[in-house]
Amino acid sequence: MRRVAVAGVGTTRFGKLVGRSLRSLGSEAAWLALEDAGIERKQVQVAYVGSALAGLLTGQECCVGHLALREIGLTGIPITRVENACGSASSAFREAWIAVASGLYEVALALGVEKMTEADSSVAIQALMSASDVELEADQGLTFPGVFAMIAMRHMYEFGTTREQIGLVAVQNHRHGALNPHAHFQQEITLEQALGSRPVAYPLTLFDCCPISDGASAAVLVSEALAAHLPSDPVWIAASAQASGTYEPSSPITTFQPTVRAAHEAYEMAGLGSEDVDLAEVHDCFTIAEILHLEDLGFCAKGEGGPLVESGVTSLGGKKPVNVSGGLKAKGHPVGATGLGQVYELVRQLRGQADQRQVATARVGLAHCMGGFLHGDGGNSYIHILTR
Amino acid sequence: MRRVAVAGVGTTRFGKLVGRSLRSLGSEAAWLALEDAGIERKQVQVAYVGSALAGLLTGQECCVGHLALREIGLTGIPITRVENACGSASSAFREAWIAVASGLYEVALALGVEKMTEADSSVAIQALMSASDVELEADQGLTFPGVFAMIAMRHMYEFGTTREQIGLVAVQNHRHGALNPHAHFQQEITLEQALGSRPVAYPLTLFDCCPISDGASAAVLVSEALAAHLPSDPVWIAASAQASGTYEPSSPITTFQPTVRAAHEAYEMAGLGSEDVDLAEVHDCFTIAEILHLEDLGFCAKGEGGPLVESGVTSLGGKKPVNVSGGLKAKGHPVGATGLGQVYELVRQLRGQADQRQVATARVGLAHCMGGFLHGDGGNSYIHILTR
Repeated sequence: MRRVAVAGVGTTRFGKLVGRSLRSLGSEAAWLALEDAGIERKQVQVAYVGSALAGLLTGQECCVGHLALREIGLTGIPITRVENACGSASSAFREAWIAVASGLYEVALALGVEKMTEADSSVAIQALMSASDVELEADQGLTFPGVFAMIAMRHMYEFGTTREQIGLVAVQNHRHGALNPHAHFQQEITLEQALGSRPVAYPLTLFDCCPISDGASAAVLVSEALAAHLPSDPVWIAASAQASGTYEPSSPITTFQPTVRAAHEAYEMAGLGSEDVDLAEVHDCFTIAEILHLEDLGFCAKGEGGPLVESGVTSLGGKKPVNVSGGLKAKGHPVGATGLGQVYELVRQLRGQADQRQVATARVGLAHCMGGFLHGDGGNSYIHILTR
Repeated sequence: MRRVAVAGVGTTRFGKLVGRSLRSLGSEAAWLALEDAGIERKQVQVAYVGSALAGLLTGQECCVGHLALREIGLTGIPITRVENACGSASSAFREAWIAVASGLYEVALALGVEKMTEADSSVAIQALMSASDVELEADQGLTFPGVFAMIAMRHMYEFGTTREQIGLVAVQNHRHGALNPHAHFQQEITLEQALGSRPVAYPLTLFDCCPISDGASAAVLVSEALAAHLPSDPVWIAASAQASGTYEPSSPITTFQPTVRAAHEAYEMAGLGSEDVDLAEVHDCFTIAEILHLEDLGFCAKGEGGPLVESGVTSLGGKKPVNVSGGLKAKGHPVGATGLGQVYELVRQLRGQADQRQVATARVGLAHCMGGFLHGDGGNSYIHILTR
């Protein structure tokens, strides 16, 4: 396995992007990433494209990879679409990493793209529910807000986590998102607004939930040999780990076992510990999820995620800023693009190009993304550690 | 890149499998492949699952990989679904190959699965049309039978290919399928039946078209080091190539450029030429397609595919048997499973386990699969060369 660098990144704005299609979003992000890398289109040797919901939301069930790269005329090379629900873009990044690390290719493009906001909302919900088992589970009424509401109740019961601590995740991520010109929501909210927003699934309210967004993000991955010849400073992929699983019958619902296992594997691969991580982007599909991830990633002990948020440590300016992009909560969650949106943020931060939301000491960044939720069999958790 | 072996293969029957779901089909094929390899479920380190149409045909838009392996309880490991229209299973096989060849994993499972026959036929057609560009092309009326009918007309005009030669592909593949207990159609047809069947798109008739099928196929890929310790003789992956493209404006529609390029790359990687191939499985979605592939793979000169079929060279008992499984035409075409169905056939042949349809001198087998058809930008062609 060879060392692999991220040579360039690109992203569209995330949000309700009226009139923008898979083709236009995907091509914009890919083009920006190539430009950022100083790589010509014809130098790209392989592409992996993450997209989760294109079939049900746009009718483009097949060839989503080719479609998303069509407008910039990227063809000829192997183009493969990968899907793992909300982890689809992380999957694209990981497969691109394997392809370059293997020695087979020198330059790989990873793209994630999703077009969600112009589908009927009942169709969007149906499509999102297919991240569970459609035949056995999706019609049982336990939607994702319901799942995370149960987790929140249990976390509050077991560890004394307060409703305010959960709400503070939204407040913090909106404060970060207000500094990000690519974010879906670029305005701050107060704790009172967060707690007083309309109920979704008790105890979660509207501001505990990430939005439905359109968007695309991309990264160009290159071999070490090539990285030396490119204009911009490379950011290195120090680790890539993916684990799937499970709420085992004996496992508490306040831990995502795949995240714990993938994090363990990633820290080992990178030769780093959780204490070495300067900033992280984590999968805050719901506010309570961020609290779980802080614990599962080893940023604090199990049960102490709430107090950690309250302490300000994970806020911009704190010792270990989390979701300074705004996270899924404020930056938005175009499902198949999210994992590469995280990579975009980390690369900009590690290069010192994050403007108003720059983390001063950013040398090691961690991206955590999840995808899928088959009850009892879970989905995938992805951890990528990037270093400069 | 390390040498990689296919240690085991498994397949369901292909056909109209009433009451069988993605979960049951996928798990059956995966289980059979593990059993064939002498590999325990817990030894599998990574899985790639090809599926093209699950969203529109079954509602399972996301997590198709996990779903398909759920019944055999395969979880914990990275499970990634890949999609490239009709090439999805070839993609799964290729990504599994890269994952083991890279040194990252010792054991990878590749699975392809599709459930098509219980969807409404108008939905199935809509889903299949999404292998073209839904926004720009799918509603223009040029369906895939139409595309291949145009190709047939041009091939007949340009090279003097006869209607009978095209029909003979169906006759031959049905003769092969009649010997395959996993085939969708297991009966022979006469040339008169083929030519006299009802028109679909002139000059193609019903028997020129592959059926819509359910099915799943799987392969277990292992490192060379591990292969030495397994009970069955390994079959080696001598080459894996994937190219995308295009009908360039200047390119004749009687050649698939991605096939030509992928074949060139694969022969070079394997250190073999087209003359070394003992048997091939090719993507005969329509009879005329097989004739094109014979030419594009270098089995004969461009334009001579019709006479080659007529000569009997590509028939079981001939010098270079093609689609002895029955091909897509008779074995069936469960879209996301097809590429691994080809691998299943080649591995059984190379091991001398193909019973009535055994090719006597099978030492080098070639699998050719295509996926997607964006007009002007094409889709992907995959070539895998397996050797014993």
